[in-house]
Amino acid sequence: MKIALISTGEEILAGDIVDTNSAWLAEQLHEHGLKLAWHVTVGDDMASLLDAFSLAAERSDFCIVNGGLGPTTDDLSAEAAATWLGEGMRELPEWRDKLEQYYAKLNRVMPASNIKQAMIPESAQMIDNPVGTACGFAIQHDNCQLMFTPGVPHEFKRMIHDQVIPTLLQHAQQQAPSLHRWLTIGLSESLLADLLDDLPLPSGCTLGYRSSQPTIEVKLSVPSDVSEEQLSTVKQGINQRLGGYVFVDAKLSLAAHIQQLMLARGVKLATAESCTGGMIADWLVHEAGSSAYFERGYVTYSNEAKQQDLAVPETVLAQYGAVSAEVAAAMACGASVNANTDFALATSGIAGPSGDTPNKPVGTVAFALKTPTGVYQQLLKLPNRGRTMIRKQAAAIALDMLRRYLTGVDVLADYSGVSEMKQEFIAN
Amino acid sequence: MKIALISTGEEILAGDIVDTNSAWLAEQLHEHGLKLAWHVTVGDDMASLLDAFSLAAERSDFCIVNGGLGPTTDDLSAEAAATWLGEGMRELPEWRDKLEQYYAKLNRVMPASNIKQAMIPESAQMIDNPVGTACGFAIQHDNCQLMFTPGVPHEFKRMIHDQVIPTLLQHAQQQAPSLHRWLTIGLSESLLADLLDDLPLPSGCTLGYRSSQPTIEVKLSVPSDVSEEQLSTVKQGINQRLGGYVFVDAKLSLAAHIQQLMLARGVKLATAESCTGGMIADWLVHEAGSSAYFERGYVTYSNEAKQQDLAVPETVLAQYGAVSAEVAAAMACGASVNANTDFALATSGIAGPSGDTPNKPVGTVAFALKTPTGVYQQLLKLPNRGRTMIRKQAAAIALDMLRRYLTGVDVLADYSGVSEMKQEFIAN
Repeated sequence: MKIALISTGEEILAGDIVDTNSAWLAEQLHEHGLKLAWHVTVGDDMASLLDAFSLAAERSDFCIVNGGLGPTTDDLSAEAAATWLGEGMRELPEWRDKLEQYYAKLNRVMPASNIKQAMIPESAQMIDNPVGTACGFAIQHDNCQLMFTPGVPHEFKRMIHDQVIPTLLQHAQQQAPSLHRWLTIGLSESLLADLLDDLPLPSGCTLGYRSSQPTIEVKLSVPSDVSEEQLSTVKQGINQRLGGYVFVDAKLSLAAHIQQLMLARGVKLATAESCTGGMIADWLVHEAGSSAYFERGYVTYSNEAKQQDLAVPETVLAQYGAVSAEVAAAMACGASVNANTDFALATSGIAGPSGDTPNKPVGTVAFALKTPTGVYQQLLKLPNRGRTMIRKQAAAIALDMLRRYLTGVDVLADYSGVSEMKQEFIAN
Repeated sequence: MKIALISTGEEILAGDIVDTNSAWLAEQLHEHGLKLAWHVTVGDDMASLLDAFSLAAERSDFCIVNGGLGPTTDDLSAEAAATWLGEGMRELPEWRDKLEQYYAKLNRVMPASNIKQAMIPESAQMIDNPVGTACGFAIQHDNCQLMFTPGVPHEFKRMIHDQVIPTLLQHAQQQAPSLHRWLTIGLSESLLADLLDDLPLPSGCTLGYRSSQPTIEVKLSVPSDVSEEQLSTVKQGINQRLGGYVFVDAKLSLAAHIQQLMLARGVKLATAESCTGGMIADWLVHEAGSSAYFERGYVTYSNEAKQQDLAVPETVLAQYGAVSAEVAAAMACGASVNANTDFALATSGIAGPSGDTPNKPVGTVAFALKTPTGVYQQLLKLPNRGRTMIRKQAAAIALDMLRRYLTGVDVLADYSGVSEMKQEFIAN
């Protein structure tokens, strides 16, 4: 079964908006064992739309058309569909009622132009939109069914999820494969592929990778005829090969995973950041409920701040330099004492582009994790892929140290592309 | 002149990678007065490529083909181009030399498969790639010129910028229009459009908007035949209508703009964040050189942290609550005293989804800016578009207060969609 997508809109072609719907749709289809075969983006003029419908109908069994269902004169998708089919438009009285009620609730009179949103081609079947004023519709042309969907992302996603994908699965006469995920940190995509390359997979199973730096997701798609036992063997194999680099087999972020682990233990965290400059705290606070374990954070960018706020001894700064495992350890201890927490994370590094020295090139970052039993500290050389990537990777490694401790795997790990300049544990 | 784009790759159709090249290209073309008319994404099999070449050649004068120039067996673009033209391939000896030198420098033998990257269709013209191992090439078919470019983003961008756009401009026999930008904060896109709607523009000038929350860019494209005088009148008109909501007429971020202003004054900043949780610090530290003015930051998520680290009086917390202009002011003053800085910013709010009270719904955020002459403080109700959007808008408003102070416009502004619960200035 071939599935096509038509995205409409001058703003996409002009780069004024980024088309996030299409990437999202491709991923959703893939996760349901379906595949996008062809995707065209055209302007929202009549000629381009008619051309796109014909091209898609020749190349697919199902075509999703996205955008152009709004109330303005640019929104031509429904009219173009009727023209293409050689038929007129009909009004949906139930949708007109819905629109009028919507405006009545806002105490406003419905603008005349909005009646357009209740008009679909004569032969079309309405597709409900429970979260917006643009209804979708489906038309049939030769052997292709075209499904028209709104451009507003949350309306589009809801319609795809509730109505389009079930229709597609029914026509494909297939049950959606089950999807299994491993979120990993510290291995590159090619290393992951090498590790899993020769793993025997039951017929029909496929492995995929999706990089969303600094983590990479491993996806295993499993057809419905694979037995529980076969599946469990494969999962075991993957877990064994990826070991401590896997942080969770669900769609959680690293911060959300840490929040679960910290809340389960009932322990608290403080942070002390230099080169990551608030990024670790920001990632943690991104998760609702983080206040239950994240006590406070320090962004101690200057040496004075490290001394005054975190009691880092001037002698340690002088002897080892601000970017050193020793200073990171002192920062973590200072934060943990101030905040009276069991755990504290600290970073201090050279994110560049300047500030490097012969011994400490750009990408040199010191880390420390204070735990109830002692301090894990390390000095690493991260690849220099620019200031932002260095800071992001540093924030991820810091959080991964805590994640590793809480799950009982080696805290001081070997990360792909990273060289270890120093790694040690100092017991209390 | 019609320009088409063919993106190739199963990974894009499968949603495994997000196609950032096409949105970037659309924007670049637009900024040079050119326009993408048609864009198709196809898999990298031979049949799909041949079909895409034919469709694009019928619909455009120039077609940019992206991807499929790598060394692996999936990379079929050059072979498909030769097949489509009905001709063989030829080796580029100079490119083969370059590849061999590249591997020699890495002390590795070039894999045999890589010779492929020096092969282009017989009639094709090479396009240099100074930053990678895949050379580009151009072919002519009837009235369409197709330009093949590598998929690796930084290689693609360099080739488009240095070679493709100049060729396109030359063929379009046009000078690139000049582009003028205003970065705004605090007005919605529709309010911006309303403000500028009836501004008289010289013929050929167009206004565009690009939202990149929390800022919106206003873009004015000006053909080369518009006089300096006409242009200056239009720019004046835009500046007048947008007033203090414009923060800079260049492509800087809010943080980069503030860094320039702070460094020019030689003054220093500290931050104290509750609901923004490190985001303000992170945005500032994102800019290289920020350590020259950003002294330190506090993420004081708990009341204890606010009292211990920032000396917020317990009585103020008890009387006004943590989310109050008074507590934000005390946080800013505490940070400024600790860090011995002229300026300090503070936030404290309810980012949700829980933690709200009848008087303080989700989206209520308190802000304070400590300056040498006193404290600007305000309690605002931001629209509840979710935790992340509330936190981002809060971080942006805090930075905007500082930006407004440093540029001499009203610090306590009226932001679109935001209601003011309290706004005041307390002199020292």
